[in-house]
Amino acid sequence: MDAIGIFDSGIGGLTVLRALRRAMPDESFCYLGDTARLPYGTKSPETIYRYLKQNVSFLQALGVKALVVACNSASSVLDRHDWEGIPIYGVIEPGAAAATADGEVKRVLVLGTAATVRSGAYPAALKKQNPDLVVRQQACPLLVPLVEEGWQDDPITEQILRRYLEAPLTENPDAVILGCTHYPVLKQVVARICGPDVRLIDSAEVMAELLVGALAEGRIPKAVNPATTKIWTTDSSEDFRRVGARILEPFDVNTWLPADIR
Amino acid sequence: MDAIGIFDSGIGGLTVLRALRRAMPDESFCYLGDTARLPYGTKSPETIYRYLKQNVSFLQALGVKALVVACNSASSVLDRHDWEGIPIYGVIEPGAAAATADGEVKRVLVLGTAATVRSGAYPAALKKQNPDLVVRQQACPLLVPLVEEGWQDDPITEQILRRYLEAPLTENPDAVILGCTHYPVLKQVVARICGPDVRLIDSAEVMAELLVGALAEGRIPKAVNPATTKIWTTDSSEDFRRVGARILEPFDVNTWLPADIR
Repeated sequence: MDAIGIFDSGIGGLTVLRALRRAMPDESFCYLGDTARLPYGTKSPETIYRYLKQNVSFLQALGVKALVVACNSASSVLDRHDWEGIPIYGVIEPGAAAATADGEVKRVLVLGTAATVRSGAYPAALKKQNPDLVVRQQACPLLVPLVEEGWQDDPITEQILRRYLEAPLTENPDAVILGCTHYPVLKQVVARICGPDVRLIDSAEVMAELLVGALAEGRIPKAVNPATTKIWTTDSSEDFRRVGARILEPFDVNTWLPADIR
Repeated sequence: MDAIGIFDSGIGGLTVLRALRRAMPDESFCYLGDTARLPYGTKSPETIYRYLKQNVSFLQALGVKALVVACNSASSVLDRHDWEGIPIYGVIEPGAAAATADGEVKRVLVLGTAATVRSGAYPAALKKQNPDLVVRQQACPLLVPLVEEGWQDDPITEQILRRYLEAPLTENPDAVILGCTHYPVLKQVVARICGPDVRLIDSAEVMAELLVGALAEGRIPKAVNPATTKIWTTDSSEDFRRVGARILEPFDVNTWLPADIR
């Protein structure tokens, strides 16, 4: 098996899978969505870490050559760069690096789930890039359900986003990290509210760039077999397939299987 | 142990515990919130049933004398009235009975999670009460996160509720079932939108009435020991305690313990 393994708390991470497939069309992917226990963003670090370990073991048993943690909440408790010899990539460090790649960035706003914000993982990673940065965080628990309701282009969603962005915006951020797999869907609304001068950091794009580099530099071996995409979910709800198909256009998935993880 | 066991997907069911404690101050309660796997409302019937069984077994092992399923999504997959000899009460049938207790009710609107609506459990129970009823359902996935965000008295919440109620309201319901443990928190807003002539059915009150009757009629033995309240949650997040304390006022809980269910 020479596939790249990706896991997410649910199907929001399909935005990451989509970006990786576009950037690396010759690679195969195994995606695991822990839909039976989502969301992770409201849960404790101990519980999220337990789920992370179980999901990584599942992908490891499939023989993947690299591991991508698409979920920001799970990435925020990730404490290593390899997992029993397999390179593992979370979204926090590359997101922080992308946010500060332009040396002019002085103030960064992090939008995330309650778990991601509480972990302090983004502020720590950002300060490692530049100790003088001003970092603000805002937990946005309503954004995931709004996206899942399909209300991304809705005046109500814009109102709620304005409320979340209002207080921190008085700090005039130069960059905003969209710190949850669902938030890139709201990128245009955030851009409209923040204005054209604010850099928006999208984990999916950041991760695609990182993996393209890792393949080019030989840190991950290139695929030898024809590209396939396989998806596993821990729950079987039809809703997930419907939302998943909408995110992952075109929906050319080889298999969609149940995963028995508990 | 002569306690009544209650379980919910999370801490919303504390609205039911609160109502039961007020109605039966001499009784003891063991409450289990499956906070590590909440919410149930987005998940498949098979997964919800598996969680139901595990949670009931946990309470059964404590030796409870009766079981209350506070969660509407879990109640919607409940298929029996006793569990290995212990009476078990879901919220669907008593809710349907309360909605139709007034013989004048002709049209009922059910508000619920995606899982509760999809199950069709409320329409089935309502039609059993009166085959001529007109029943409409509306899934309201944003209401739980709005309540958990603490936005119950917010113009945004009223706007969202109006959107959910708009289409079905053209049917002019005589009764609205608040078919999720979180929704009673929004009762006043729903009442304002629907008007004073619409009966609002709150599962917590219905369940309290049902259990008071069962105790009076001897279907559940009365408590012999001093009243205590014990709470278990499968996750340990501080957020749950904070929201829990807000719901369960006064917060005179004897113990709050972790439950290892997986």
